[in-house]
Amino acid sequence: MPEKNRQIFLVETPAGKLQESHFEMRTGDIPAPQDGQVQVRNLLLSLDAANRAWMQGDTYRKGVGAGDAMDGYGIGVVTQSESDRFAAGDIVGAAVGWQDYSVHKAHRLEKLPADVKPLSHLISLYGIAGKTAYHGLVQVGRPKEGETVLVSAAAGSVGMFVGQIARNLGCRTIGLAGGPEKCAWVTDTLGFDACIDYKNEPYRRRIAELAPDGVDIYFDNVGGAVLEAALFNMAMKGRIVCCGAISQYDTTEMTSPRGVPGIHVFKRLRMEGFIVMDFADRDAEAVRDMGRWFRDGKMVVEEDILDGLENAPRGLIGLLAGDNRGKRMIRVAPDPA
Amino acid sequence: MPEKNRQIFLVETPAGKLQESHFEMRTGDIPAPQDGQVQVRNLLLSLDAANRAWMQGDTYRKGVGAGDAMDGYGIGVVTQSESDRFAAGDIVGAAVGWQDYSVHKAHRLEKLPADVKPLSHLISLYGIAGKTAYHGLVQVGRPKEGETVLVSAAAGSVGMFVGQIARNLGCRTIGLAGGPEKCAWVTDTLGFDACIDYKNEPYRRRIAELAPDGVDIYFDNVGGAVLEAALFNMAMKGRIVCCGAISQYDTTEMTSPRGVPGIHVFKRLRMEGFIVMDFADRDAEAVRDMGRWFRDGKMVVEEDILDGLENAPRGLIGLLAGDNRGKRMIRVAPDPA
Repeated sequence: MPEKNRQIFLVETPAGKLQESHFEMRTGDIPAPQDGQVQVRNLLLSLDAANRAWMQGDTYRKGVGAGDAMDGYGIGVVTQSESDRFAAGDIVGAAVGWQDYSVHKAHRLEKLPADVKPLSHLISLYGIAGKTAYHGLVQVGRPKEGETVLVSAAAGSVGMFVGQIARNLGCRTIGLAGGPEKCAWVTDTLGFDACIDYKNEPYRRRIAELAPDGVDIYFDNVGGAVLEAALFNMAMKGRIVCCGAISQYDTTEMTSPRGVPGIHVFKRLRMEGFIVMDFADRDAEAVRDMGRWFRDGKMVVEEDILDGLENAPRGLIGLLAGDNRGKRMIRVAPDPA
Repeated sequence: MPEKNRQIFLVETPAGKLQESHFEMRTGDIPAPQDGQVQVRNLLLSLDAANRAWMQGDTYRKGVGAGDAMDGYGIGVVTQSESDRFAAGDIVGAAVGWQDYSVHKAHRLEKLPADVKPLSHLISLYGIAGKTAYHGLVQVGRPKEGETVLVSAAAGSVGMFVGQIARNLGCRTIGLAGGPEKCAWVTDTLGFDACIDYKNEPYRRRIAELAPDGVDIYFDNVGGAVLEAALFNMAMKGRIVCCGAISQYDTTEMTSPRGVPGIHVFKRLRMEGFIVMDFADRDAEAVRDMGRWFRDGKMVVEEDILDGLENAPRGLIGLLAGDNRGKRMIRVAPDPA
């Protein structure tokens, strides 16, 4: 166990692309819990495109600005508890931040099952990525058997699950991913029916070819020009699930999809945004279905784990550039034995 | 009764603003009904922004191109019937087109109550305008008492009803209209709580001032920059009802609202398009409520009726420029005695 707490700060608000120089690692004392608080040894940090969106200002949560400690969801093990709701050794999930240790009021922590192996599945399959995919597709998109589901960032943390869930629900699945290797993996390993290489193919035309009757559900992780291409290929009564807009986060240049709202009217589209927490009351359903599919061999879980807290800035920057395949995380400390 | 049928054709597809020179009136024989068909003397034509959208190509219906007879919804009286479902004297609604007489297969006609006085209410209060407002607000927007409803084109055919329905359902209502006279009419006569003059006021800031807790429902008739202003002022879980995009129809310059889809995600917005026909199975509910409010003095019906088929092109051009107040129609022939 370290004797000091390393913590990563955002020292400059990025204008344009995020760079490692925008961050700084500082070392301080390990924070001690007060009455009602819990000290956590952080194990795994979830890297998410939303981390970058927070730097653009207040969104669904307070923004992260220059001088702030970098925040982020993660899981950890309780090392010291001043609350009767938690005991040392408990596995918990929380906004642990980019640091070795974190201290939380007990009600800000979620107790997680300690017997999941590996614990990283609490971030991917059963965690923020899997639940986002499940709730977005099932509760917001409301797929019907036989429908065509298009997913952007299909090799990414959420997209990989969306396509597999859709397939397990009897839908036709088309992915969008960057580069031939990712596309081959999306079809061959994840089992999507097709995958379009948006970096090298005329994707608007390819969507039209692959979905001649239109796209019933477009699960949007990227926004921008790809959203526009999907919009012009939606089927009547189609649904656009707005999960994220990664193309709009690491830039100061916003691109707005044409066709809004004309196409919404004449195609009767529903375009709806959500955050995974909105459906917390249905998490059990997500965990049940995802677990069953996984055990039945119907759900591939790909994790892209970088070792070491110090690699969090680089890991996030790479994620924004599309370097990852599957759910990207930072390993801060090994799973407890 | 005329002995010839006058009929207006679109002779040139407009690039940019619609002009009278794009139309041509031609005179021909009055069409005779075949077996199973019905001949209708057209009485009133509904002029709608959608008429212009049809000239941009196929939308929710086939487009109207150069050389086509101009189409449009209207009501008429049956003059000759070769179907046992209709008799001379019946009042009917249909896509009667811009002409004196029309002939239809019986199943393309809707029989309307002949005792409504004036019959123009079958187009405004109980017709395409009122039902569009009712279904859009009630079924798509799903207002709750105490919510704030923002309506663009608030002095227009649909907007005028939307605000009044919202008020009758216990919502706070804010209109957007062009010019101080229209705005005064929207508040003083229609009873909106406030109205913003989008031509002369900084409307994005004014929306923020008038709806400090955000807009729960934005009923969009215009698209473009006004939609963008609304988008940035939506409340959490807000709904944008996409009814039309008049700012995008009479032009070749499309403007896309910024903030799509970022704001959808973090505010969890639902943006949904519809067409009045989608809710035909609930028309009775609309007619019941609208009628009750009208009889109780809680629903002002403003009609802007131009006399003479020959004025249809001018009337539509004026509507696209925002000249009308209330539901604009063309009187083709007087109501039967």
